[in-house]
Amino acid sequence: MRRWNGWGDDSIQPELPASGLGFLEDRIGIAQPLADAALERVIRQVPASRLPDHPLIRKEADIRVRHARGQSLPDWLAMRSGQFGVFPDGVARPERGEQVRELLELAAEHGFIVIPYGGGTSVAGHINPLAGERPVLTISLARMDRLLDLDSESQIATFGAGTPGPLVESQLRARGYTLGHFPQSFELSTLGGWIATRSSGQQSLRYGRIEQLFAGGTMETLQGTLTVPTLPASSASPDLREMVLGSEGRLGIITEAKVRVTPLPERESFHVMFFHDWQLAREAARRMVQAKIPLSMLRVSNGEETRTQLALAGHPTKIRLLEAYLARRGAGDGKCLMTFGVTGSKRQCRHALKEARRFGKRFRAVYMGTGMGQKWAEKRFAMPYLRESLWQRGYAVDTLETATDWDNVDSLMTRIEDNLHEGLADERQPVHVFSHLSHVYPQGSSIYTTYVFPVAENYESTLVRWERLKHTTSALIVENRGTISHQHGVGKDHAQWLHVEKGTLGMTALRSLVATFDPTGILNEGTLLRKTDGGWGSKKGGHHEPETH
Amino acid sequence: MRRWNGWGDDSIQPELPASGLGFLEDRIGIAQPLADAALERVIRQVPASRLPDHPLIRKEADIRVRHARGQSLPDWLAMRSGQFGVFPDGVARPERGEQVRELLELAAEHGFIVIPYGGGTSVAGHINPLAGERPVLTISLARMDRLLDLDSESQIATFGAGTPGPLVESQLRARGYTLGHFPQSFELSTLGGWIATRSSGQQSLRYGRIEQLFAGGTMETLQGTLTVPTLPASSASPDLREMVLGSEGRLGIITEAKVRVTPLPERESFHVMFFHDWQLAREAARRMVQAKIPLSMLRVSNGEETRTQLALAGHPTKIRLLEAYLARRGAGDGKCLMTFGVTGSKRQCRHALKEARRFGKRFRAVYMGTGMGQKWAEKRFAMPYLRESLWQRGYAVDTLETATDWDNVDSLMTRIEDNLHEGLADERQPVHVFSHLSHVYPQGSSIYTTYVFPVAENYESTLVRWERLKHTTSALIVENRGTISHQHGVGKDHAQWLHVEKGTLGMTALRSLVATFDPTGILNEGTLLRKTDGGWGSKKGGHHEPETH
Repeated sequence: MRRWNGWGDDSIQPELPASGLGFLEDRIGIAQPLADAALERVIRQVPASRLPDHPLIRKEADIRVRHARGQSLPDWLAMRSGQFGVFPDGVARPERGEQVRELLELAAEHGFIVIPYGGGTSVAGHINPLAGERPVLTISLARMDRLLDLDSESQIATFGAGTPGPLVESQLRARGYTLGHFPQSFELSTLGGWIATRSSGQQSLRYGRIEQLFAGGTMETLQGTLTVPTLPASSASPDLREMVLGSEGRLGIITEAKVRVTPLPERESFHVMFFHDWQLAREAARRMVQAKIPLSMLRVSNGEETRTQLALAGHPTKIRLLEAYLARRGAGDGKCLMTFGVTGSKRQCRHALKEARRFGKRFRAVYMGTGMGQKWAEKRFAMPYLRESLWQRGYAVDTLETATDWDNVDSLMTRIEDNLHEGLADERQPVHVFSHLSHVYPQGSSIYTTYVFPVAENYESTLVRWERLKHTTSALIVENRGTISHQHGVGKDHAQWLHVEKGTLGMTALRSLVATFDPTGILNEGTLLRKTDGGWGSKKGGHHEPETH
Repeated sequence: MRRWNGWGDDSIQPELPASGLGFLEDRIGIAQPLADAALERVIRQVPASRLPDHPLIRKEADIRVRHARGQSLPDWLAMRSGQFGVFPDGVARPERGEQVRELLELAAEHGFIVIPYGGGTSVAGHINPLAGERPVLTISLARMDRLLDLDSESQIATFGAGTPGPLVESQLRARGYTLGHFPQSFELSTLGGWIATRSSGQQSLRYGRIEQLFAGGTMETLQGTLTVPTLPASSASPDLREMVLGSEGRLGIITEAKVRVTPLPERESFHVMFFHDWQLAREAARRMVQAKIPLSMLRVSNGEETRTQLALAGHPTKIRLLEAYLARRGAGDGKCLMTFGVTGSKRQCRHALKEARRFGKRFRAVYMGTGMGQKWAEKRFAMPYLRESLWQRGYAVDTLETATDWDNVDSLMTRIEDNLHEGLADERQPVHVFSHLSHVYPQGSSIYTTYVFPVAENYESTLVRWERLKHTTSALIVENRGTISHQHGVGKDHAQWLHVEKGTLGMTALRSLVATFDPTGILNEGTLLRKTDGGWGSKKGGHHEPETH
């Protein structure tokens, strides 16, 4: 069954290898786990619902608990401590677009806040209800999980927006197709959620981000139904698809999505190379993507991430042998791991692999074949489970991600890592920090940084630790040409930094768009755009962002 | 010197080969050219300017004539007849963003209409002033034509928005780079114009449409300066770049553009194959693009376009020999020409060519090598000059373009062609019509249709002929799942059909965006969104589009 207070299925509980634990203890000390609250205790806290009875709305406490939080570290701390704060007043699980429309009409009439809910995997607070006067109705798309149509000539599949990753792929695979969208949250996250938050999958190098995959569809709004037609391309006006993408439930609820699919590839394999150091690895990655080598995936771990991965892999004897071999080939202590995928027809794969290895050679990499790459592929969705294992040892884990142009990648990564490292220095608490480039583009790269620290003596001070790390680093990112999010979206946790990236005029444009669709501000309030003093409809309304022009 | 009443440089005057003329006369009869008006006569019509004196504003009649019209067929008829109707009251050619800002402030203060002007190559009426009470100030970006910065690590070039195609490429080439954006209007059209109208270049298969090339930049608006930062990708909110793209001067004036550039390729060649018939050619094109063969260009002419191209090529003896050879190989009367480009490193080109020929073979194409492809590449920007030659023989030429999903490509192309063929049937005037697929995508294709008809006995009835053809076909396109424009934009000529594609709610969103940036509606009025009864600021304002939800 799905964990009510953590990631994934509760039958899956990966062991942390002793070598990994030792490595962490060495880095940041031994930790004392905090006690988890029991579900029953949380259920007893749930207040009476303020929603009226309605055949589509469930108000049981258990369901409301299970839809109150996502997967951010503050969400974890809330769930583990049992201090949820706010619960939705009810959860509806419509099966059809008309029911979504009916629920939106009900909400508009009574002034309920509406939160669209996909897989509940947000790490930025998208689906968390805020405290307030107005009752909160969470609308889960979980029952809209079917492949509704497949046009194999145009390679477009139509899905209910609540379809989670595994059901997207299994329904397509049965017909010989794939969407190819594999975010780390794949197991639980949904197509509608991917679109609403501009998600990126691990193989975006071949298949594109969700922006490239989303061809059109239906969004139910308070002003009626918005139907975005599928067109291969158009020069007619700003693109409505691009207004839906990243709208995070502020414009309406995506109910049906048409996506661009691809026939299942003939071949797919994942490969590993080790580079002597970070400069060589990063430079090779940049050159490979700028040369348009048709890889399906390219990921580069920095030195500390490479060390951490090898420590967490278990099998210390094997790893020692591997490291000795690599050291003899020049890839010693600062070595960096590159994983890349080749996908397509036999001939395409052969060509891509040849080209990739040619670049590897040019940058003196040690090519290791497919063994470790295969391992990566098998475990690609297991990383979130590791969080569970670390938690039980008393370690809190969070990730931060951004993207920036190549000329700024090293500088920004270093700043982020330094800031996190030193973030708890006044408590004399070191933080373990490592990064990789997960999505590379000719123009630049994403930077994905993981940080691990021991929980503090209680939940409150653990949250304070997180806030200090997260807030200072978020500010640092946007002040140094990074986006506040490359793949997690804005939600509530990133909303206060959005204005730095968008500028005053950009924020005005976004606010005006939201106000057009939702003049009374009942859709997912506080997500993407913060609650303002001036009210949503008013363009002159005071808001917190400083003027930047 | 640039022609004041037609395309391009007046020293270039291509001859129409006798074989081509005979072919046309055979199809649609002998035509009687209409007399052209003299520039002096037009200049005498220009009324006094309603603009105040200002150091940045020129009010000479000659300059106002040369900025009054684009390159649509109605524009040609207006220019050739000398019946311009409306002229801008003045033309400013600022050299810097601050001057654009100054001009916008002046316009806001006095309520002038402002028309941004790039290369003046619009074929949809983007830059034509409308008759009205308010003086019209055309702001030409012609003097902002420099490469301002090149970041070779991130492969981003910064240009003044008025840089025309040849200056974009020559400034980049000197540094070893290319933008790779080659619309047919390349010789005159500008970077800012490409962005404002979502342009597509002939090699978009490799380099992407302008949407993929535009990384960020600066737009001066009535509300201040909008700066869109460069980011390789972001999940933070709907993308501001996508609001600028296709905004057609309604939100502001793009002054500086940062674009994604590519090192000059090692190799480039263009190849030709002939298919037995349309079904095979179209199917091969679809399969090739869906298989992600890394071509830089792919274009398929239908039977009638293939016949027309061969007739217009001149060298009838050579062509007869070629056709005899092709017929022996199975490509007889209905044969269809495919032109494709391979661009990149030597190895990439070898791989791409091999793959393309493999598909050709599978669909029984006759591969002809690079001779005809090279010819195509040499003449790729010469097509607009042909219009001049045809005009002098009494023929009017216009093009229509759209894009649709693959399952609808044949059906829509046939409808468009049938409608144009029969469009003047009640005058017993046949129309010569032919089409090609110019931009192919895994999901579908653009359809680019050319139609030629003899001018009528005078300008007025020639315009009526055009209106009947254009208007009925535009309506047919949007009613049959085509976009009103794949690459020319909306302008004024397509604005009345936009609502069918966008829907009522989509139109509301666009109107609200425009009203946010330009509440009094002085920026390029009537372009993209039509003038409405209710005024720009009012969302409830009556407008002409029927309700569609």
